[in-house]
Amino acid sequence: MTQRFERLNEEKVFKDPVHRYIHVRDRLIWDLIGTAEFQRLRRIRQLGTTFLTFHGAEHSRFGHSLGVYEIARQVINIFKNRNDWDDSETLLSLCAALLHDVGHGPFSHSFEKVFGTDHEQYTQAIILGDTEIHRLLEQAGGDFPQKVADVIGKTYKNRLVVSLISSQIDADRMDYLLRDAYFTGVSYGHFDMERIWRVMRPCNDQIVFKLSGMHAVEDYIMSRYQMYWQVYFHPVTRSAEVVLTKILHRAKVLYQSGFRFRHQPVPLRTLFEGKMTLQDYLRLDEAVIMYFFQVWQEEDDPILSDLCSRFMNRRLFKYVQISKDQLNVDDKLKEAFIKAGIDPDYYLEVDSSSDCPYDFYRPGEEEERLPIQLLMPDGKTLHELSLESDVVGAITGKRRTDHKLYYPKDKVLALPEHSIAKKEICELLHI
Amino acid sequence: MTQRFERLNEEKVFKDPVHRYIHVRDRLIWDLIGTAEFQRLRRIRQLGTTFLTFHGAEHSRFGHSLGVYEIARQVINIFKNRNDWDDSETLLSLCAALLHDVGHGPFSHSFEKVFGTDHEQYTQAIILGDTEIHRLLEQAGGDFPQKVADVIGKTYKNRLVVSLISSQIDADRMDYLLRDAYFTGVSYGHFDMERIWRVMRPCNDQIVFKLSGMHAVEDYIMSRYQMYWQVYFHPVTRSAEVVLTKILHRAKVLYQSGFRFRHQPVPLRTLFEGKMTLQDYLRLDEAVIMYFFQVWQEEDDPILSDLCSRFMNRRLFKYVQISKDQLNVDDKLKEAFIKAGIDPDYYLEVDSSSDCPYDFYRPGEEEERLPIQLLMPDGKTLHELSLESDVVGAITGKRRTDHKLYYPKDKVLALPEHSIAKKEICELLHI
Amino acid sequence: MTQRFERLNEEKVFKDPVHRYIHVRDRLIWDLIGTAEFQRLRRIRQLGTTFLTFHGAEHSRFGHSLGVYEIARQVINIFKNRNDWDDSETLLSLCAALLHDVGHGPFSHSFEKVFGTDHEQYTQAIILGDTEIHRLLEQAGGDFPQKVADVIGKTYKNRLVVSLISSQIDADRMDYLLRDAYFTGVSYGHFDMERIWRVMRPCNDQIVFKLSGMHAVEDYIMSRYQMYWQVYFHPVTRSAEVVLTKILHRAKVLYQSGFRFRHQPVPLRTLFEGKMTLQDYLRLDEAVIMYFFQVWQEEDDPILSDLCSRFMNRRLFKYVQISKDQLNVDDKLKEAFIKAGIDPDYYLEVDSSSDCPYDFYRPGEEEERLPIQLLMPDGKTLHELSLESDVVGAITGKRRTDHKLYYPKDKVLALPEHSIAKKEICELLHI
Amino acid sequence: MTQRFERLNEEKVFKDPVHRYIHVRDRLIWDLIGTAEFQRLRRIRQLGTTFLTFHGAEHSRFGHSLGVYEIARQVINIFKNRNDWDDSETLLSLCAALLHDVGHGPFSHSFEKVFGTDHEQYTQAIILGDTEIHRLLEQAGGDFPQKVADVIGKTYKNRLVVSLISSQIDADRMDYLLRDAYFTGVSYGHFDMERIWRVMRPCNDQIVFKLSGMHAVEDYIMSRYQMYWQVYFHPVTRSAEVVLTKILHRAKVLYQSGFRFRHQPVPLRTLFEGKMTLQDYLRLDEAVIMYFFQVWQEEDDPILSDLCSRFMNRRLFKYVQISKDQLNVDDKLKEAFIKAGIDPDYYLEVDSSSDCPYDFYRPGEEEERLPIQLLMPDGKTLHELSLESDVVGAITGKRRTDHKLYYPKDKVLALPEHSIAKKEICELLHI
Repeated sequence: MTQRFERLNEEKVFKDPVHRYIHVRDRLIWDLIGTAEFQRLRRIRQLGTTFLTFHGAEHSRFGHSLGVYEIARQVINIFKNRNDWDDSETLLSLCAALLHDVGHGPFSHSFEKVFGTDHEQYTQAIILGDTEIHRLLEQAGGDFPQKVADVIGKTYKNRLVVSLISSQIDADRMDYLLRDAYFTGVSYGHFDMERIWRVMRPCNDQIVFKLSGMHAVEDYIMSRYQMYWQVYFHPVTRSAEVVLTKILHRAKVLYQSGFRFRHQPVPLRTLFEGKMTLQDYLRLDEAVIMYFFQVWQEEDDPILSDLCSRFMNRRLFKYVQISKDQLNVDDKLKEAFIKAGIDPDYYLEVDSSSDCPYDFYRPGEEEERLPIQLLMPDGKTLHELSLESDVVGAITGKRRTDHKLYYPKDKVLALPEHSIAKKEICELLHI
Repeated sequence: MTQRFERLNEEKVFKDPVHRYIHVRDRLIWDLIGTAEFQRLRRIRQLGTTFLTFHGAEHSRFGHSLGVYEIARQVINIFKNRNDWDDSETLLSLCAALLHDVGHGPFSHSFEKVFGTDHEQYTQAIILGDTEIHRLLEQAGGDFPQKVADVIGKTYKNRLVVSLISSQIDADRMDYLLRDAYFTGVSYGHFDMERIWRVMRPCNDQIVFKLSGMHAVEDYIMSRYQMYWQVYFHPVTRSAEVVLTKILHRAKVLYQSGFRFRHQPVPLRTLFEGKMTLQDYLRLDEAVIMYFFQVWQEEDDPILSDLCSRFMNRRLFKYVQISKDQLNVDDKLKEAFIKAGIDPDYYLEVDSSSDCPYDFYRPGEEEERLPIQLLMPDGKTLHELSLESDVVGAITGKRRTDHKLYYPKDKVLALPEHSIAKKEICELLHI
Repeated sequence: MTQRFERLNEEKVFKDPVHRYIHVRDRLIWDLIGTAEFQRLRRIRQLGTTFLTFHGAEHSRFGHSLGVYEIARQVINIFKNRNDWDDSETLLSLCAALLHDVGHGPFSHSFEKVFGTDHEQYTQAIILGDTEIHRLLEQAGGDFPQKVADVIGKTYKNRLVVSLISSQIDADRMDYLLRDAYFTGVSYGHFDMERIWRVMRPCNDQIVFKLSGMHAVEDYIMSRYQMYWQVYFHPVTRSAEVVLTKILHRAKVLYQSGFRFRHQPVPLRTLFEGKMTLQDYLRLDEAVIMYFFQVWQEEDDPILSDLCSRFMNRRLFKYVQISKDQLNVDDKLKEAFIKAGIDPDYYLEVDSSSDCPYDFYRPGEEEERLPIQLLMPDGKTLHELSLESDVVGAITGKRRTDHKLYYPKDKVLALPEHSIAKKEICELLHI
Repeated sequence: MTQRFERLNEEKVFKDPVHRYIHVRDRLIWDLIGTAEFQRLRRIRQLGTTFLTFHGAEHSRFGHSLGVYEIARQVINIFKNRNDWDDSETLLSLCAALLHDVGHGPFSHSFEKVFGTDHEQYTQAIILGDTEIHRLLEQAGGDFPQKVADVIGKTYKNRLVVSLISSQIDADRMDYLLRDAYFTGVSYGHFDMERIWRVMRPCNDQIVFKLSGMHAVEDYIMSRYQMYWQVYFHPVTRSAEVVLTKILHRAKVLYQSGFRFRHQPVPLRTLFEGKMTLQDYLRLDEAVIMYFFQVWQEEDDPILSDLCSRFMNRRLFKYVQISKDQLNVDDKLKEAFIKAGIDPDYYLEVDSSSDCPYDFYRPGEEEERLPIQLLMPDGKTLHELSLESDVVGAITGKRRTDHKLYYPKDKVLALPEHSIAKKEICELLHI
């Protein structure tokens, strides 16, 4: 069984634009990368529909997964050089870092909304189920797959290993901020990762940061903040997301109502029928989705074909900013849409984005976050970040939310000049 | 008709990792980018199968096309500031720069090999045929589409405009070297583009370079040389290309022989039947191809399903270096493959790569190249680059060729231990 | 007289690591750069003693001055392209940008503290006095030198021109943040300058920023904040500054008390005597200062020679953090130093650094700052930045101050083991 | 004595723009950096007069020395991880890397020409003489200073250690190419250093490179070639060098002829008298030289004062290109200069630059170079680089030389309009 802990005769590398090189020294890591389940990540974009806003953002989850692995590897190396790390946890940590996103499917966010799938459950299923990945992990010990799943699921007993992969400042976030900034080309997203590595200290069951590195941590938090609002929540990306969700929704409704597709969505059948197996799931990727969007442009259903054409040719919805009180689409607006012959179920949508750039632990809240702790010069005392940093303090716990109503402006403008519906819609939307 | 020369009220920009921003000021350019035919370039990777070697190389022809446009725009601006440019050619030049690659299909190289298609002909067809692009171009003048096609086809009378888009040092090459270096992450591919721009001088019917910028031009030539051998001709990329070609070939043979696919390749039918229309062609993209490769893994034909599985899961062919004398696969090797039950038509292939990093005009050769001319300090005399530059002189006209024989090593190694065929193959391939 | 508005036959460039190239098209700018007074900026470091903390920070005010000019030039070009700029102010703006720092002397901060000089007054004197720069400026109009001086002195009537050079987000600050980040090598200090340029709008008498670019402005403010605390106020730099100030102070005291220097500070005489002329000032540069620090290591005065040796060989003072209540050096500490034979006038110093990263106008305060105004989508309304930005709002008007007591730890530790003075000092300083 | 091998309790770092961080873990290295002799490198520019051509090139030999140390440290770490390195040579190698340039003085090239000094001898003298550096090295063993001197002097028995510091592709060259490119801002000078490190293999008594990394080595050779001609041999830099040499020459002649300087060059006396001690040498730095150039502008000797003013204010000599046959300044030109009252000894100079970008061993030549060897895939055979690489082959052993005649064009143009001398000079120089 120990063969899996084997080192490669010669280190292998991947050229990577963010980390220069990804270094692989363990046979198990090398073999995991070669599995069908992992290679599949090449066909799932890291940022979903963002490539329609930032054309550089065409990178896949494959490179990101390698990047998270590389960061974990380097941090562990630093810890090992300081005799600050239990080496028996190394391979486990590296596997968890590499595989943390392996359950992602195409356009996960929209899929989960329409079909109730959960990429985290699929990650568990891939690691524990009947897969190449599982068989490889098993060779490193019968309980090894479960341990990897536990680290990713945040239930592993060694909290240090968990926090390396999942915390407010972990290998995952560090890689995606740098990587997404690189591929989109934005100026945000940079921070001094090497400095953060050097001030990280394992401390009991979590990773803390030496006070002297506080500014690098501040800078990371601010980068995260900027990336969220400038890239991840960009209104055009969200518009593409809305259209995508509507397509999936429409296709599901049509399928369930017995609509006869010219192009039968064979690989999606079990999904539509609510009985998708792991093997079915693993067959899905963005090429499959894009293929059907492409051919569905020719379906007889005008809604499906119009929405697909919009997505493929980037004729997205426009938006108006709305306030918190307007979260339910106004009945008058719906009526006017119906009057105009535009189905509001598919052509009107409120989308809300909300981010809390940093927070400390608030018991009982939906997503409990571990605070970032600073290690004082005495080497013992810990202070929570927002107490030491003015800048972080200012944004701590402040949830910022943005609501937008998306609709097809072109469709509205194309209504007959003097139709009452058009007039009403234009007034309600202030166009 | 002149409405197409209209300027946008407010300049629009695309964030671009290579040029920081792409600036659009003309309505025609903006509208061309919005067409279905141009948006389709988002679904065609710039470097084909290279993403299987360099995982960062997932960028599409969409960004590259914008980049070529931006370079042309900036160079023309510099010329205009020096009163060195006929402004009536500006919009034409920009359109040609933007659209020069619009006829590319998915994995063009392999497609052209198997189906005899020609992306350059499709570029002409898209510009001149029944397309959104054609209709937009027409608004700028009845002969405008033809002029754009002529510039791209290198038959336009103003040779200066042609050489801006197509020459040994043009907007196309400058963008792809920088862009491909950026996305792959390699150190090669950088050169001082801004300096080259500044030493460019329109001179009669071509663009020449002031002698003082010779070193920047040298550096560009060397970057090109390194990119070819380090990235474009990487043996793993070529292996993926071989597998891809074999899949297309097999599918075509099966289709033509009446094979009953579980997953009918509907969008590929006219291609297989040799009667593809422009509209059929425009429906093809990499998602379509990847979709069928995905589902064909389940076809009954063992060759098709094996090859598809290899491509999807990156289990590519290995290679041995061969000499010029071995370009025809040895009959003995073929026989041994047949004996072993491995079809040599699909599992053996010689691939040759060949590049001439720089050359001056050699009348009568297959691809005649315009030499790069240096403008001497007297402002009149021109000297050909290789006469002035030792480094370029050293590689001028030297075609470097590399031949490799690709085969599935795993399949060979999996043959019965003591089979004669295995022994023969291993001896012939020195494994 | 108009010859000064002459354009160069051919644009000239300087290679610049921050802006790639600095472009010069006006003869006047070219000639100003060639004057003795401007070339002198090559011998004055941009960041004074910071090179002792960040070894890369050896860059001079020469490059920074060119950079500010280049930013002003580019912003004006953008304004001109939008027909948003009065071209008759262009050359004036460029001259003011180029010359805004020309009055800086070596280690200005320490000099001003010890000798009461004022680099801003010298800038005015150089522009208006008997200098090469003045003679060149005069050729562009008799009142042109005064106009340049007014722009730099912020009294020029066209407030737009003033705010381009001096405001909370001006050409000066943009260049120094990027430049100092580049040369020190820190990750902070980056922001999307090109985006900021594009959202700048001249609006009455000031430059405002389109709301859509708010995040780029936020990022600039945060970069500024980080650079202040990570680079400009670095405690080691401040220690070097303290030692430098003490040297100048000691030399002045010695000179005034008739001390016989082995190495007579000839170029500093009029400075010590309080009757320095403009010509004397222009002879000063960092080489002159460093020369005397070098040779004064051999003077008989032990304080002067010790302090010079500390500065030259980077054996600086150490520090303890102190609170606001401890700003006056404790009398007990002074007494203990005297008891120990260490002169507290030269070996004890409280240094305070204080920064307010962003503020809006507060009438009557020492340094009134113009607020940054955001232009709302209606194209008319202005909103002050901190009202729109959470992050900026959080730090607006918050002055952060840091106090440190500097002293020569080595000297204290070298005191006889059991001396009472040593014991007292160690107790008082907690060492 | 072994205390010197002590590790620091906590690693210390220097922020470095080229290598991100310089890591110091040995107390000896830390203490060496703190010596007066090493700190002195802060006051000696890495590229001499180049800052007058590329204003960013103001960086000192201090940063470069740290960089060479860091590269050596990283390469040794890679070797150690492969069990390919004798760890007892580590500290020696690091000290030699750090100190290899410690004997450099201000503007070494010109000094050596005029005064016959030799910076390599001074490096030996500093390591072996009565210095802080020597005393520190001695603590690591009585023969340790001599070993460090031997490595730097290339006479150390372990050739592997020597070739790490001095060979055609060593830590010194790798750092200066990257560093000088960074500070000047040129696009040349980049190569994939990390790749080169990974393909380096200790092989008997030299470092060889795996064939698979040949292209990275090629790229390094080409970078070196470009940096030489674009930066190091830039004609403006050479002009400044000519003026500088003439100043030193004139000052020496004046001193030796008893000229009474207003500003006595006290620190230069022993230099002028040919009896400079090591301590005198260590007092020299660029501030001392620049100080005297500054004050000598006011000396009575018109040649000295004119040349100093030229250097300080960057009014350098112009040049004409000359051929190999014209290396001796034409007697007619000299006569015409004398006739015009311009001393040709100080105002006419032929400067030749010559570089051989790569060469293999040619026995008996002045500077014998060890060839770069490539390790073939068999892991045994070595092939010399130029036999494998077309590009390198093309430039191997090809010495390129450039000759220029420098003279003060302004002085010539200022001669009386109709003077015969002016006419003659203009004709001879084709101006």
